Amino acid sequence: MPHADSSLVPEEIDTKSAFWEHVHTQLEALLDPDLNWVSNLSNTSSLVYHSLLAFPKFFGPDDSKAVNWCGFYLNAPYFPTSKSTPTPAAPAHQKLLLGPFCGKPACQFINVAPGKARGVCADAFVHRQTVLVKDVEAYPGHIACDGSTKSEIVVPILISNADGTTTPVGVLDLDCLALNGFDEDDQAGLEKIVVLLNKTCKW
Amino acid sequence: MPHADSSLVPEEIDTKSAFWEHVHTQLEALLDPDLNWVSNLSNTSSLVYHSLLAFPKFFGPDDSKAVNWCGFYLNAPYFPTSKSTPTPAAPAHQKLLLGPFCGKPACQFINVAPGKARGVCADAFVHRQTVLVKDVEAYPGHIACDGSTKSEIVVPILISNADGTTTPVGVLDLDCLALNGFDEDDQAGLEKIVVLLNKTCKW
Repeated sequence: MPHADSSLVPEEIDTKSAFWEHVHTQLEALLDPDLNWVSNLSNTSSLVYHSLLAFPKFFGPDDSKAVNWCGFYLNAPYFPTSKSTPTPAAPAHQKLLLGPFCGKPACQFINVAPGKARGVCADAFVHRQTVLVKDVEAYPGHIACDGSTKSEIVVPILISNADGTTTPVGVLDLDCLALNGFDEDDQAGLEKIVVLLNKTCKW
Repeated sequence: MPHADSSLVPEEIDTKSAFWEHVHTQLEALLDPDLNWVSNLSNTSSLVYHSLLAFPKFFGPDDSKAVNWCGFYLNAPYFPTSKSTPTPAAPAHQKLLLGPFCGKPACQFINVAPGKARGVCADAFVHRQTVLVKDVEAYPGHIACDGSTKSEIVVPILISNADGTTTPVGVLDLDCLALNGFDEDDQAGLEKIVVLLNKTCKW
């Protein structure tokens, strides 16, 4: 099967939970545990974004309810440093940098330094829990990369450590053109996808 | 201006050369020389892909002539290695790995090892020159990540060394749903964009 076909959604799928189960199965086949996180997250954002475009019952390509952005921001130290011009390592836990995504151009970084963190992505990362925003205009400190976004969901990516603590790696962020675009079924589906990413990617 | 608006295309732009000049100007403002290549190439693929969707005279969102994939494959050694589970470094110049892109899910890697290289991306990388394919079905060894792709253009990313030689870093790859989707104006525009990326990104 050509890789592109993994984002097709069978017509009989008509609930959000069945949709996310389908996407999860497709993602399991698409991810490659031997590859770096850039390649795996590039395909993940593409699969989730294009599957949502192919699910018109709730999202689809309709300009009034489409998911218009789906991608990743990751903690600065995980990014590659230059091989040709060595630069000082980025300070840990101060900035999330733009990772692979589908959608229109986006903010290059998000400040998560103590006292300076603001916005949905920063809050999900700092507090290590999913933030589901029904109306971005009503969210304190919302950062508008795209003025047409109406609602948002951000799921943190947390590595479990041997001592029982977690280390936040970054976030999976989705924006929707509709108010109340996402609900608890989307949250459950996306959190399961992040568990799969955590299991597969070598961070 | 919200970052997303950088992919708007003014209505008065009606030639391909004016279009690529506009995209180049937007990209100059969007790229951040202090950032890693993952963040910069993620925004680049998004800007080019969404600008093409907003240029209906030649491409646009029309299913018969849209650009359906725009992104990067890069030489394996440039990708980040795991911080938690050290893995042996990838052998140089053997594989191009999937980088940031917009479009449906894609092949994770492309073999460029001597005797095993095949397809448009591998040829552009190995021979260090742009390959413009009017009809992918007629191209020997074409790799079909998406069966609906009809034409393709691949521009190599080459670093200039102090001794006058070049080092290939990867390729910028675009697919189109129409036969003869790309021409010499697109080639000139994309090659200029790659020069800008080379100047801005720390590889």
